[in-house]
Amino acid sequence: MDIIKGTSADSRLWLHNCWYVAAWSNELTAENLYAIRITNKPVLVYRKHNGQLVAMADQCCHRHMPLSKGRREGDDIRCMYHGLKFNTVGRCIEVPTMKLQGDEVPPAFVVNTYPVAEKHDWIWVWMGEPEKADEALIPPTTGPDDPHWCMHKGHLDYQANYLMINDNLTDLGHIAYTHLNSFAGGRSDAYFNQPRVQKLDRGIRITRWNTDAPRRAYQRSQDSHFDQFMTYDFIVPGVLMMYQGMYTAGTAQASDFGPPPEDLDPDTASFTSQAVTPMTDGTSRYFFSWGPRMSEHQQNPQIVEGMWKLANKAFMEDKLTIEAQQLNVNLQTASPMVSITDDRGPTMFRRVLDTLIREELAS
Amino acid sequence: MDIIKGTSADSRLWLHNCWYVAAWSNELTAENLYAIRITNKPVLVYRKHNGQLVAMADQCCHRHMPLSKGRREGDDIRCMYHGLKFNTVGRCIEVPTMKLQGDEVPPAFVVNTYPVAEKHDWIWVWMGEPEKADEALIPPTTGPDDPHWCMHKGHLDYQANYLMINDNLTDLGHIAYTHLNSFAGGRSDAYFNQPRVQKLDRGIRITRWNTDAPRRAYQRSQDSHFDQFMTYDFIVPGVLMMYQGMYTAGTAQASDFGPPPEDLDPDTASFTSQAVTPMTDGTSRYFFSWGPRMSEHQQNPQIVEGMWKLANKAFMEDKLTIEAQQLNVNLQTASPMVSITDDRGPTMFRRVLDTLIREELAS
Amino acid sequence: MDIIKGTSADSRLWLHNCWYVAAWSNELTAENLYAIRITNKPVLVYRKHNGQLVAMADQCCHRHMPLSKGRREGDDIRCMYHGLKFNTVGRCIEVPTMKLQGDEVPPAFVVNTYPVAEKHDWIWVWMGEPEKADEALIPPTTGPDDPHWCMHKGHLDYQANYLMINDNLTDLGHIAYTHLNSFAGGRSDAYFNQPRVQKLDRGIRITRWNTDAPRRAYQRSQDSHFDQFMTYDFIVPGVLMMYQGMYTAGTAQASDFGPPPEDLDPDTASFTSQAVTPMTDGTSRYFFSWGPRMSEHQQNPQIVEGMWKLANKAFMEDKLTIEAQQLNVNLQTASPMVSITDDRGPTMFRRVLDTLIREELAS
Repeated sequence: MDIIKGTSADSRLWLHNCWYVAAWSNELTAENLYAIRITNKPVLVYRKHNGQLVAMADQCCHRHMPLSKGRREGDDIRCMYHGLKFNTVGRCIEVPTMKLQGDEVPPAFVVNTYPVAEKHDWIWVWMGEPEKADEALIPPTTGPDDPHWCMHKGHLDYQANYLMINDNLTDLGHIAYTHLNSFAGGRSDAYFNQPRVQKLDRGIRITRWNTDAPRRAYQRSQDSHFDQFMTYDFIVPGVLMMYQGMYTAGTAQASDFGPPPEDLDPDTASFTSQAVTPMTDGTSRYFFSWGPRMSEHQQNPQIVEGMWKLANKAFMEDKLTIEAQQLNVNLQTASPMVSITDDRGPTMFRRVLDTLIREELAS
Repeated sequence: MDIIKGTSADSRLWLHNCWYVAAWSNELTAENLYAIRITNKPVLVYRKHNGQLVAMADQCCHRHMPLSKGRREGDDIRCMYHGLKFNTVGRCIEVPTMKLQGDEVPPAFVVNTYPVAEKHDWIWVWMGEPEKADEALIPPTTGPDDPHWCMHKGHLDYQANYLMINDNLTDLGHIAYTHLNSFAGGRSDAYFNQPRVQKLDRGIRITRWNTDAPRRAYQRSQDSHFDQFMTYDFIVPGVLMMYQGMYTAGTAQASDFGPPPEDLDPDTASFTSQAVTPMTDGTSRYFFSWGPRMSEHQQNPQIVEGMWKLANKAFMEDKLTIEAQQLNVNLQTASPMVSITDDRGPTMFRRVLDTLIREELAS
Repeated sequence: MDIIKGTSADSRLWLHNCWYVAAWSNELTAENLYAIRITNKPVLVYRKHNGQLVAMADQCCHRHMPLSKGRREGDDIRCMYHGLKFNTVGRCIEVPTMKLQGDEVPPAFVVNTYPVAEKHDWIWVWMGEPEKADEALIPPTTGPDDPHWCMHKGHLDYQANYLMINDNLTDLGHIAYTHLNSFAGGRSDAYFNQPRVQKLDRGIRITRWNTDAPRRAYQRSQDSHFDQFMTYDFIVPGVLMMYQGMYTAGTAQASDFGPPPEDLDPDTASFTSQAVTPMTDGTSRYFFSWGPRMSEHQQNPQIVEGMWKLANKAFMEDKLTIEAQQLNVNLQTASPMVSITDDRGPTMFRRVLDTLIREELAS
């Protein structure tokens, strides 16, 4: 039951009482039936005509046909195998043959519904006990819908367990190598300051100054040196919210390597929200956004495109890395895995997740 | 051992003492070596020069090489790995190196043969105890070789367990939805009369009148209303024989919703024979034919083409439905499956099959 | 534990104290990081700048990232996930974050290395206890680097367990059938003389005269008849070294079907070295070379091309045969496998291998 080992066996333990990102908001149009698997369960999400969301098991209670292959009838869903019709709370309200005979649909004709919320441009689904679903537990991310930022967004599907991706995202050490030719701008040396890693209730907080950081092409001041400040919370099951700012060289030290003064205007700043959703044991969906402040964008509309190109290069580097790692892990060679300082983030996060899963199993 | 639950575990129980459709007659030419898997076993079927059929294990008794990749020598089969030659009763009659040394081939050098029969345009293979093979147990279908009908024929391979396909074929309720835009002609309402479902010795019989049925494009009388009569037997392992006729509106009631008078000439009539063969646990072959009476065909040769186009559209609808359902079933979400009136056919047929399998295991 | 049965379960037992062919010499350039799996383990092989070889586990000791996706730094390898750097004996000599803090890398930071050798144009890796690695155990093959021969070389990947391929290579009986239209020149009858099969310490020796052998297109004397002499050792895990010579008809008898006189010049002669490497339970790599004497090549440079075309046709025949056989074996039909005289080679070799594995497990 010790998920911090990260073996594939352990990875079948899920946290249920948790909000999982199912989609970007715009992946749900007014009409479509959106299907995704989350923690090995088929989930259907769609919008009612009043805009409210519905999430339910994507399998008819009759023969497990995916309802996402069914038909909308107003806000209800008709399974197109035998015509069972479900309302927005998962209650079967019509079985065609019963209707003709004047029979009532039995109360057992239901599909599981899931608490669902739309916040920060994401659709969130709660996979555990509905009565425990608390929107306050949705990580307070900043999405592309925030007018202060100008972000692009996308997703990638991984042939890997989600814990492998979480490990990657809670570790800054890999930037200097995996992303040497993207985020690190060719300079491994600039990325070795150790981050502060702090435990949060349902995640961890990581903060780092990269002094004398590589300048990026889109920065306003081309001739100066900068200290790069990065801070993010990483919350279960795998939600990242990161602020980055380039400050005049010396700011790190002046701030005692803590957060820079709030009233200090960085040369450039950006925000990225990311989320890892376990679809099945061996597949995951990785959602991501990134972009500069809207004010920077207005001065230079090219910035966001340049950043997006860089991000897509880097995220593909991660995918190739993690999928190659997963193939080796699948071989189960029984070789040990040693720990390094960079693992503080991954280890602390896996412990947080492990503890929450244990508590859930014990309750 | 309760196969009526339809889980993938249950589906590994096969009925052995049973005729399985291996091929359409014309899939076996005078010369070819036809290979198929039936109930997880490799089977070779071919024609002797006198036209008689041979079915045997498609694996040499030496190193399990498929004999279907071998060479015909007259009516015998030479394995092309080491040259072992088998006669039509599966006896190895030559091992090249033994022959040179003048040694006799030991009696243990045999491959299993299967009783095989050709009837109603199908090749049938008996997978159980040969002494129990009784051609009288071959379902009395009507094939495309019957001069009274003009049928086309084909097959589709499914990535699904055969029980899922049987469920579909023993249930008329799905026509109104899965086939809304094909067989149901856009009218869900026309297909809700409940069929009569009767138990037979090795299957079930399903009969239904669809009153005021949607008229089909190929019908002779374009201005009248019709009652559609459908009746079929569905026999283990999954053989369907269905007669359909369009009768003048009122015939259903006049016949007390039983079979129409035999001397009553329908406006149009058709016959379809279909068979589901479990190849492996998760793959199946679905054979099907359909067509009008020869007399109708002679008056209008376009009918059978229109019907065939319609059938292929509908059978692809079934395939997409059942394969999507199978993927959900594979997730084993532990959600229950409720029963509806439409399940009478599937449930009764699964019970018949279950009982036969239990009897076979007990004997 | 009885591997001579050849079931897939048995095939998961590997001989560890053994040299496995990892690559042809020229598959390792001066710079590349060559990756292969051997007995389910990921292996990295590369050349140091002085030409010496290094073989190590292709997984970083930190998070099991393949080192083959890393970067060479001189003769060392930098893992490109977190930057751990390994020297040529598998010792981690740098962890970037530890370096910055002046910490020493703990001794547990190592990856397994494998004894590796380059001989006869092949790269050999010892998968067992390093102290037992003895280059004298490398089979004394003749590779394409031998100036006496003019050989081409290549490899094929199989979707099959390596024991299936070994069976094929230790059996001459299949030549008359599987290779009827390639090696056997259309004449099954010419290949039935039984070979002598002798047990060696770590393999077997097979010798055969094919009297009145089919003449091959590239032979010098077109009008004579020939006796074909073939002799090869087949050594664990699956290394074949075969000499073939065409001698004037009558030589077989004159030699009492033993080796021909050493001073007798054959009409034509060729050598082939081949090796089967188990990558995983169900996949194998098959390395092969073939060619005539250099003196024949100099007289007729077309010979080697004709032989190579013939070999590639024949080796593809083997691949199609063995992969079809493997699919049948995977079905586990429980049908027995009978033995024939031709199995003397395969059976004796499996026993040798089985004995070595038992000894290894017992020690």
